[in-house]
Amino acid sequence: MLSNKKKYIVNGNSGIKAQQIQFADQKQEFNKRPTKIGRRSLSRSISQSSTDSYSSAASYTDSSDDETSPRDKQQKNSKGSSDFCVKNIKQAEFGRREIEIAEQEMPALMALRKRAQGEKPLAGAKIVGCTHITAQTAVLMETLGALGAQCRWAACNIYSTLNEVAAALAESGFPVFAWKGESEDDFWWCIDRCVNVEGWQPNMILDDGGDLTHWIYKKYPNMFKKIKGIVEESVTGVHRLYQLSKAGKLCVPAMNVNDSVTKQKFDNLYCCRESILDGLKRTTDMMFGGKQVVVCGYGEVGKGCCAALKAMGSIVYVTEIDPICALQACMDGFRLVKLNEVIRQVDIVITCTGNKNVVTREHLDRMKNSCIVCNMGHSNTEIDVASLRTPELTWERVRSQVDHVIWPDGKRIVLLAEGRLLNLSCSTVPTFVLSITATTQALALIELYNAPEGRYKQDVYLLPKKMDEYVASLHLPTFDAHLTELTDEQAKYLGLNKNGPFKPNYYRY
Amino acid sequence: MLSNKKKYIVNGNSGIKAQQIQFADQKQEFNKRPTKIGRRSLSRSISQSSTDSYSSAASYTDSSDDETSPRDKQQKNSKGSSDFCVKNIKQAEFGRREIEIAEQEMPALMALRKRAQGEKPLAGAKIVGCTHITAQTAVLMETLGALGAQCRWAACNIYSTLNEVAAALAESGFPVFAWKGESEDDFWWCIDRCVNVEGWQPNMILDDGGDLTHWIYKKYPNMFKKIKGIVEESVTGVHRLYQLSKAGKLCVPAMNVNDSVTKQKFDNLYCCRESILDGLKRTTDMMFGGKQVVVCGYGEVGKGCCAALKAMGSIVYVTEIDPICALQACMDGFRLVKLNEVIRQVDIVITCTGNKNVVTREHLDRMKNSCIVCNMGHSNTEIDVASLRTPELTWERVRSQVDHVIWPDGKRIVLLAEGRLLNLSCSTVPTFVLSITATTQALALIELYNAPEGRYKQDVYLLPKKMDEYVASLHLPTFDAHLTELTDEQAKYLGLNKNGPFKPNYYRY
Amino acid sequence: MLSNKKKYIVNGNSGIKAQQIQFADQKQEFNKRPTKIGRRSLSRSISQSSTDSYSSAASYTDSSDDETSPRDKQQKNSKGSSDFCVKNIKQAEFGRREIEIAEQEMPALMALRKRAQGEKPLAGAKIVGCTHITAQTAVLMETLGALGAQCRWAACNIYSTLNEVAAALAESGFPVFAWKGESEDDFWWCIDRCVNVEGWQPNMILDDGGDLTHWIYKKYPNMFKKIKGIVEESVTGVHRLYQLSKAGKLCVPAMNVNDSVTKQKFDNLYCCRESILDGLKRTTDMMFGGKQVVVCGYGEVGKGCCAALKAMGSIVYVTEIDPICALQACMDGFRLVKLNEVIRQVDIVITCTGNKNVVTREHLDRMKNSCIVCNMGHSNTEIDVASLRTPELTWERVRSQVDHVIWPDGKRIVLLAEGRLLNLSCSTVPTFVLSITATTQALALIELYNAPEGRYKQDVYLLPKKMDEYVASLHLPTFDAHLTELTDEQAKYLGLNKNGPFKPNYYRY
Amino acid sequence: MLSNKKKYIVNGNSGIKAQQIQFADQKQEFNKRPTKIGRRSLSRSISQSSTDSYSSAASYTDSSDDETSPRDKQQKNSKGSSDFCVKNIKQAEFGRREIEIAEQEMPALMALRKRAQGEKPLAGAKIVGCTHITAQTAVLMETLGALGAQCRWAACNIYSTLNEVAAALAESGFPVFAWKGESEDDFWWCIDRCVNVEGWQPNMILDDGGDLTHWIYKKYPNMFKKIKGIVEESVTGVHRLYQLSKAGKLCVPAMNVNDSVTKQKFDNLYCCRESILDGLKRTTDMMFGGKQVVVCGYGEVGKGCCAALKAMGSIVYVTEIDPICALQACMDGFRLVKLNEVIRQVDIVITCTGNKNVVTREHLDRMKNSCIVCNMGHSNTEIDVASLRTPELTWERVRSQVDHVIWPDGKRIVLLAEGRLLNLSCSTVPTFVLSITATTQALALIELYNAPEGRYKQDVYLLPKKMDEYVASLHLPTFDAHLTELTDEQAKYLGLNKNGPFKPNYYRY
Repeated sequence: MLSNKKKYIVNGNSGIKAQQIQFADQKQEFNKRPTKIGRRSLSRSISQSSTDSYSSAASYTDSSDDETSPRDKQQKNSKGSSDFCVKNIKQAEFGRREIEIAEQEMPALMALRKRAQGEKPLAGAKIVGCTHITAQTAVLMETLGALGAQCRWAACNIYSTLNEVAAALAESGFPVFAWKGESEDDFWWCIDRCVNVEGWQPNMILDDGGDLTHWIYKKYPNMFKKIKGIVEESVTGVHRLYQLSKAGKLCVPAMNVNDSVTKQKFDNLYCCRESILDGLKRTTDMMFGGKQVVVCGYGEVGKGCCAALKAMGSIVYVTEIDPICALQACMDGFRLVKLNEVIRQVDIVITCTGNKNVVTREHLDRMKNSCIVCNMGHSNTEIDVASLRTPELTWERVRSQVDHVIWPDGKRIVLLAEGRLLNLSCSTVPTFVLSITATTQALALIELYNAPEGRYKQDVYLLPKKMDEYVASLHLPTFDAHLTELTDEQAKYLGLNKNGPFKPNYYRY
Repeated sequence: MLSNKKKYIVNGNSGIKAQQIQFADQKQEFNKRPTKIGRRSLSRSISQSSTDSYSSAASYTDSSDDETSPRDKQQKNSKGSSDFCVKNIKQAEFGRREIEIAEQEMPALMALRKRAQGEKPLAGAKIVGCTHITAQTAVLMETLGALGAQCRWAACNIYSTLNEVAAALAESGFPVFAWKGESEDDFWWCIDRCVNVEGWQPNMILDDGGDLTHWIYKKYPNMFKKIKGIVEESVTGVHRLYQLSKAGKLCVPAMNVNDSVTKQKFDNLYCCRESILDGLKRTTDMMFGGKQVVVCGYGEVGKGCCAALKAMGSIVYVTEIDPICALQACMDGFRLVKLNEVIRQVDIVITCTGNKNVVTREHLDRMKNSCIVCNMGHSNTEIDVASLRTPELTWERVRSQVDHVIWPDGKRIVLLAEGRLLNLSCSTVPTFVLSITATTQALALIELYNAPEGRYKQDVYLLPKKMDEYVASLHLPTFDAHLTELTDEQAKYLGLNKNGPFKPNYYRY
Repeated sequence: MLSNKKKYIVNGNSGIKAQQIQFADQKQEFNKRPTKIGRRSLSRSISQSSTDSYSSAASYTDSSDDETSPRDKQQKNSKGSSDFCVKNIKQAEFGRREIEIAEQEMPALMALRKRAQGEKPLAGAKIVGCTHITAQTAVLMETLGALGAQCRWAACNIYSTLNEVAAALAESGFPVFAWKGESEDDFWWCIDRCVNVEGWQPNMILDDGGDLTHWIYKKYPNMFKKIKGIVEESVTGVHRLYQLSKAGKLCVPAMNVNDSVTKQKFDNLYCCRESILDGLKRTTDMMFGGKQVVVCGYGEVGKGCCAALKAMGSIVYVTEIDPICALQACMDGFRLVKLNEVIRQVDIVITCTGNKNVVTREHLDRMKNSCIVCNMGHSNTEIDVASLRTPELTWERVRSQVDHVIWPDGKRIVLLAEGRLLNLSCSTVPTFVLSITATTQALALIELYNAPEGRYKQDVYLLPKKMDEYVASLHLPTFDAHLTELTDEQAKYLGLNKNGPFKPNYYRY
Repeated sequence: MLSNKKKYIVNGNSGIKAQQIQFADQKQEFNKRPTKIGRRSLSRSISQSSTDSYSSAASYTDSSDDETSPRDKQQKNSKGSSDFCVKNIKQAEFGRREIEIAEQEMPALMALRKRAQGEKPLAGAKIVGCTHITAQTAVLMETLGALGAQCRWAACNIYSTLNEVAAALAESGFPVFAWKGESEDDFWWCIDRCVNVEGWQPNMILDDGGDLTHWIYKKYPNMFKKIKGIVEESVTGVHRLYQLSKAGKLCVPAMNVNDSVTKQKFDNLYCCRESILDGLKRTTDMMFGGKQVVVCGYGEVGKGCCAALKAMGSIVYVTEIDPICALQACMDGFRLVKLNEVIRQVDIVITCTGNKNVVTREHLDRMKNSCIVCNMGHSNTEIDVASLRTPELTWERVRSQVDHVIWPDGKRIVLLAEGRLLNLSCSTVPTFVLSITATTQALALIELYNAPEGRYKQDVYLLPKKMDEYVASLHLPTFDAHLTELTDEQAKYLGLNKNGPFKPNYYRY
């Protein structure tokens, strides 16, 4: 979300300024009154992390000495095109290798290229995209291209762009406008360069966070006449779409891919089960065995964290507000406590609630020396970090992403990533998880683009279950997993189509 | 379901006979064409087990020598009432002790008695019930009584009644009509005695399997004028209700308590995680460590079985038709195979699919010597047991619930419970699980009975999420679990009521 | 151990009586002063259970009405021999089937029969045995026979004999003297009938508990001149042998098979991991999920119990006296506490210490209502059951092996198996575990019988590691497990023989 | 071991040269003929890693531009002493902070300081040490000092010294001779500076690898007259000592601390359970869920790796040569295979055998694309990396410690740390594990220094079990773990001293 990303440095373009102000207001309102749909789900998306740091976004080649803004450079790719703006087109070769490595771990997209290529289901599609620009995104973009689409792309985060990958895409002919370390003004300039093109008008939007959608909404509302649909991945962006829909202002169908089953399970349960260990190890080199840990929240993220730490020999306590999740924690072998009951004895505090101020200054005051505090949940609200910015406490940066906060009596708290998401700041997201997301996005684009008129109205839709199942099926070969097929007799007995969908919508998996 | 239970021995009462025939026809049709709602859910309910054997239904006291039918006996309880029909009223004391023991493990119902007793939320309720008659049911009935209701009760299964408990209930003044080993005719006679009473007419129905509901429907349709609602627990019964609703014939609101979150998780995941081990041990005394096992189906039941066996050192393979569940199996560390790939090498085959003929004669022919085959899924359809009733195979009953099926070359397959549900035939259902169900039923009755007119129409409803959460919260004290409460600020931030519900309806837990 | 088994009812035979008295004295002395070797190991042997009940020892066929003592019966097998004494020779056929089933699960012994049969390594061996008489023992005896040995056999426990199996053995020509429910006098009579034979003198002893050894020692000391060795399985019997050795009275080599690696791991860790769940379920039908459990002792047995309960969702606390085991418990994720700290809150107390009075009356007084108390450790000393035999407490037997002990205020403690070993009283020992033991015994007999003079002196020996490894290797085919062989180069690099032994003696596994 | 570390560049000092040559010969001989004791144990010690890279040995401050050899610098600490040789004495303050942080995680040593300080059990001890020089070693050295000892110290590895820590020690007055990046000549010069001092002669040796011991042996054999004992930590050094002992050349008692229980379990089982995950994540960012892994060797290291990966959802296969360990793998739920059976299908190959050429070129040729290969076992012998240095294969360094080896057909193998120990190259060793080792070393020094004459002869000893237990007990407070004490009655019953030792020597834990 924009307001999390950077302070507004409003530029001289008054037209843009006006829009921005209006936009910012709207978001503030949103912050005050989260609606039920967006917030209640307590979900956590990779794409939420439009915050400052993003560990996997390290630059592979050194270009730190080049201080010229890409906007001021004249660059051409080897085919003579200059319809792009990246840090350094010469880094293309290195980026290409990164893309090739990513392709090997994204077999589903590669399969999609093969299966759908004959028919070119996206022939005629003009997709404008705004996402993190990484090797995995590049595999998605080139897949969309192979399926017939034309694409133009900007970054959804001012820090996360891999310059080498952007260069490789530009070299391959993709109009990409993105670099690591954009200014606020650069950010909107890039987006504008994607959509404001002479002789080209998008008919599909792929968004991550909602900034692109809103830019078009505010600046080029007429474009929506030709747009067939929006595919949105993030919690924040989805929330904005539901807001628009509720206000009767959504003028095209939108697909919420954030809440698909596979995406949710992989972004949350399976990914966090691994990244909680990774994030803690990389930052603290601690040993898990025998440590006492309290995990706040037993949703998918909390379930993943608890399972991993229990397996490594930690003693895990859980806090919950929801009695159903609380009972699950009990049945899974965790003592359900209030944070106050264990705060003095635990070695690690992990928040996974989606809530705010779950860990307060009072809790922090009572923790024992060397207690580690980190957040796996939502945004940077869960730990009241602001309450630690008081004169009597000393902050000491001991490593990247690791601060010691020191009390007057010498007690130290180890605060990771300043309370931002640990797994995005101090760990990496496996390509396999990003593959699930990218495949889901590609299928959603195909579905919206090819849907017969009337199937989707001006509303927000969940991915059809059959597509969710298709995403899953495309990833099974990675594990050499062999699916069983229903016999005709069995399908009839169950009242199912042999090709799915196999479960009712309310099925909980 | 009736047709699973017993062969029809139609009695002389032509009125009843006509109804039965019509009824049976309807059910056969149902068997042929399962609708999507009922079957797709692939769920498994304790109450499905209206099949022959029910291990926990052992009689505690010996009364085998008493051959007189209870219908022919003259019995009175100590207060002089004879409005009941049980095996032997003298067994009341023994049954009372069983009820007292059950009370200790059903704290939620006991809490409900206390919390709701002042206001008597069921004052005026006249409940007719048809369920398994066990100590746990008795605690439910006496709770309903304490809340103000009058109850009359019959058994939903001709074998599952605990005679001592029935006697204790009769002694306490509950009109109970049930005994272990009823005939077909007895079964309907008992139900009829519950509803066909002079000067008393039910206004609530609590059913398990739908037989009571259908009896009233066929014989006393006018009764529905006074009936405020039906609470139904079983998959089968719920399916019938959806059929009625679809056909426009449902004339009162009905509550589907089978699909509540807590009930599903406890009946399936948590309960089966324990009962698969218990069922296998009690029947075969086998060692789990190092055994190769294939589990067919990775729904909640399959997940529970796999987790338990993996923890005990078995090597577990999974088969699935649904790619999403298949991917979950992969991420949980199980190789996903087709049954054919592993059938020659496994030591145990467990079905949990809800499907039919998952294990065929061909599979059985290829299994290795001493392979154990059992069903944890649905009804008795999953293993094609009928295919084993051929002349060249010899059946040898080696223990209760354990058959050796012997091939001409000497190979033996160990078939458990003749392919019926292992956990109901060869294990026991913990009182805690039954407590979840009984509490859910009680709350559903209270909700339907007290709902303002218009809240529920002539349709089938799921339990409101808030009640599901309430059931869970009533069971937390068992684990000395302490729930965290939202602060006002947090509730506002999340857009939630501090008392719940805490999740959107589509939340997957 | 004899003194645990039965009260002495000394018979009229003064010669025997004198010996018994002397023997009993010796044992009492033992009880007072356990030596370091025997007790410190804290190990637990299946064969310790020479206590009253033995669940797997149920009789398969009804012979309860036959009150005649077998000693007074005239029985002949089909070949005309009457050199045996069993309950009823007519049960032979049923017993044979049990033996055949056991053979299928004891592939190691069957393999041993095949591999060693050509050379008949026990040709000339005259083995007198005293063990539990079960189907598994029968497979062992018939294996010994197939390898060339002559055997005579008595039971080591007055309750554990399976009459049908004894009949089958007698029918096959084995002189067996044993039945279920022997008197004290019968017990010694049977042993005497095994050794006191005209024209036959044993040259090998296979003992379980040391009673047979001591009988020969006391009554027929001259027999030891021809005896080549003793193989002893139990903790108690091994302890007695070390005592004899220490006192310089051991006059033949003895093999301690109790402390072999495979036997220890299977009897303790692997077997208890399963039987703790089985024993608790069969007796209480409780649910494990969410239960708080304290396990006293973190040796092999405690490790097994803790791992199983943790996997089933229990919250497990551990008590220990040994700081090394305590640190292991921490690293495995268990809170290490003193019993007093958690005694008020736990749902289950399990002892696995080998110690006495670990659970005292004071602890029992403080337990909460419905707390389950059981012993997985050693003998029946761990829980101070005697302290519960006071007038203010009421005992109520609610099931076989389950007592409620009721305090004046109504609090009930659920005591299992009266504090005796839960896994032997309320669970069963898998055939696979017994197969490990039996194979070890057979190999030890072969080793002692064939060892060149001088290899073994008049001392107690552990099984050579190579044989331990051989026992393990014979059981690998059960799991279709494929061992890797060292190349010549690798064997040289490691300084190992390609056929083992592979580890130094102090290796901890 | 030296010969693993570097190629010999013999310097001009002919006296030293002669010794070195002789020494090298001896070691080569050792490499050819490992004895049973040293190799058979297959153990793995942190200190084995005297190989090139050592990830935790990163320098905290930048001193890369300083090219002057420390030997050529004139440095004094603030007290005016120049009896040391480190990279830069000015880094002392930074190093001091590292030491202070380490102190917080080494409570056992701090407790030892307090408990033993009054009596100064090392008063008069003159210890010469040769170990890795890290913050944890510094805590050990300062503890020895606090207990009364004088210390002089060199590094046992030319790369592992933390310059800042060495500076801090020098500043505190410890004569330390070590820096990161020593030459071969520097290495021996530093050792010589430790022992060859006017007016000071060591009476205790603390060694890690045996280089210091051998230097004294060769150069100053007379020193042994005053030396009371040697404490050696590494597998290699222990092996050398056993060689000397066997050859009758060991002239003082030596303590083998490598094989103490706590050290073994922490260095191997518990540490590797965590570091396998950490090492794989940091190098490859891979996802564990669903991956097929083969672990070669099921000793302590293999057990740790398997447990961790199974918990993370990997499917794990095991290879073994020892049937007992193989059977353990089966019972723990792993399929036991030969490497050839699964080599085509696995995603990861991990060696933990202590053997050589476990993974051969033939195996590498058959692996699938992107297969990850790494070594957790012993030295760098397990994977035949040399076989990959052939012209048709291309090596590509993709990250630090990560090479892609590319086949002509494009297949890539991902080789980690060039086959050296993954957990030392690509992960970190938790301070807690190092604390166990350091405490063991300190206690061994105290024991040898204070032992009454005659307790230890010129032989190699294991740490007395009581001390092993004491090390464990000193670490329990870290986990707030509360040990139970035996009552007098219980101690008598068990025949134990209330303060331990609690187990017989052969106990396996």
